[in-house]
Amino acid sequence: MPETTPAPCAPEDVRRIACIGAGVIGGGWVAHFLARGYGVTAWDPAADAEEKLRRLVAAAWPALEQTGLAEGASPDRLTLAPTLAGAVADADFVQESAPENLELKRSLLAELAAATRPGVVIASSTSGYPMTDMQTAVEGPGRLVVGHPFNPPYLIPLVEVVGGERTDRDAVAWASRFYDLAGKSVITMDRELPGFIANRLQEALWREALHMVANGEASVGDIDASITEGPGLRWAFMGPCLTFALAGGEGGMAHMLDHFGPSLKSPWTRLAAPELDRELRDAMVDGCAEAADGRTYADLVAERDQGVIDVLRATGRLGSTRR
Amino acid sequence: MPETTPAPCAPEDVRRIACIGAGVIGGGWVAHFLARGYGVTAWDPAADAEEKLRRLVAAAWPALEQTGLAEGASPDRLTLAPTLAGAVADADFVQESAPENLELKRSLLAELAAATRPGVVIASSTSGYPMTDMQTAVEGPGRLVVGHPFNPPYLIPLVEVVGGERTDRDAVAWASRFYDLAGKSVITMDRELPGFIANRLQEALWREALHMVANGEASVGDIDASITEGPGLRWAFMGPCLTFALAGGEGGMAHMLDHFGPSLKSPWTRLAAPELDRELRDAMVDGCAEAADGRTYADLVAERDQGVIDVLRATGRLGSTRR
Repeated sequence: MPETTPAPCAPEDVRRIACIGAGVIGGGWVAHFLARGYGVTAWDPAADAEEKLRRLVAAAWPALEQTGLAEGASPDRLTLAPTLAGAVADADFVQESAPENLELKRSLLAELAAATRPGVVIASSTSGYPMTDMQTAVEGPGRLVVGHPFNPPYLIPLVEVVGGERTDRDAVAWASRFYDLAGKSVITMDRELPGFIANRLQEALWREALHMVANGEASVGDIDASITEGPGLRWAFMGPCLTFALAGGEGGMAHMLDHFGPSLKSPWTRLAAPELDRELRDAMVDGCAEAADGRTYADLVAERDQGVIDVLRATGRLGSTRR
Repeated sequence: MPETTPAPCAPEDVRRIACIGAGVIGGGWVAHFLARGYGVTAWDPAADAEEKLRRLVAAAWPALEQTGLAEGASPDRLTLAPTLAGAVADADFVQESAPENLELKRSLLAELAAATRPGVVIASSTSGYPMTDMQTAVEGPGRLVVGHPFNPPYLIPLVEVVGGERTDRDAVAWASRFYDLAGKSVITMDRELPGFIANRLQEALWREALHMVANGEASVGDIDASITEGPGLRWAFMGPCLTFALAGGEGGMAHMLDHFGPSLKSPWTRLAAPELDRELRDAMVDGCAEAADGRTYADLVAERDQGVIDVLRATGRLGSTRR
């Protein structure tokens, strides 16, 4: 990746953010940035965009008050701009959340780059397009990154940050640092992967769910309950790798893979399994050891158990068998 | 399925449970049943089984005290039997949790059925084998069911109940009713599906995770963080279908499928996508409407937001960006 033009301000000095597109995701970003004390200028071509956006922010605000507002945070610091150029004119950062359409994103990002002050980082909320494919029509594509959030962006911490082939390395670092300061939990990826990380994982699950419904094997209700009453309780605080490591008992991921590895070849799911060769096995085992970071099996079990109890209690399910 | 011989006692009258196999899952069942006030007799051929099992129960007990113990519940109501036949002799219900090996399960279930009083229901914890494939060697296979738990069985509510081709319909109903009384959240399946429901879903995700690690696309730590900081927070209380319905905004699942449906064909995950035809689309939309059960989009958004806040607070992540 090429080196960069310096951004016009440090991530610490961002004051005004332009949010382009004010649907579910764009509007969620608006609510998040407002709650974190930024001034926000939004633009959306829809006729009823302002009304819908202010309704979304108002609906989210009580939740945001619970999470703790930044000093000076207020829904009143939202301005709707009549034009795209007006929205980005004085922005220190731009978050684009247009509909998921590659051609639309390409031309919109080109238009944004032309209207935004030199060096200001422009992030796309795309849920899957690689930036390399979106930055093709942009003059000065170095400051374009993906900043992929999860719904609702004002509550779910994760944002995946990755650049395209023509993105400056510094722009990726700037965006990661900015999101971190803005209260997000950042995963910075060093290579492009369609769907990034979390969406690939949840898409795999989602496709299997669609197959089951298509074949009459399970209802939507059963699918949802199988997650919320089962693995979903653990995944709120312990990821699938470390969770499965615990399924190996005191033998951890190594025992888990050696014991359940052959099941990978079972006709579970329509997804072809990768070859569980020595290299992959060791990568999983080492990765889990690193994730455990010195915690013993007993430590992790105690932590998981307390986590499940806390989540059950928090979601009103302690003492009853169903929510 | 054939009709049945009546069980020797109603699900309400179960007093003593035999747990066969005392590893991570079998031991977890022991802890669960003890906490619910049952007497438990365990059997496991391993030399150090008793020591390990009592350690597991002791480690789980503080967590179980927090969830609320049944009257008279005590770790002292656990007995280790020297023989399999001795373990099941006076059992009102049998939970088999042997290693995941089809031949082993076949012969063990045959042995169990021969030693257990007529009509007593025998459930297998298998994480994926259909009962039809396991009950081949059993005399009187009508009382054999799958009762598939999640780790740890003493905290994760879900149990998936399903019979094989030779299982009596009444045995399935008996087991579902019993698990419900024993504090589990039951999904009763009316057809066999290798991996049942939740395991198929989490296996799809797991295989995609293994592909990513195998190809150097993401680290174990990134994969885990992408779930716990992202979709996992929602899945603790709202399943993937209803969660995705909210991604469609006020247009719900219908808008979501119409908008993101084409993305199914994107090269996300290695799992081939099903054809999103009218029938599947309508099944998803109708299923979500049923799951919403009269709650409006605004109701569901408020519920989700409160849920995420509660889960973040419960897992110590409110007010900080990382755990």
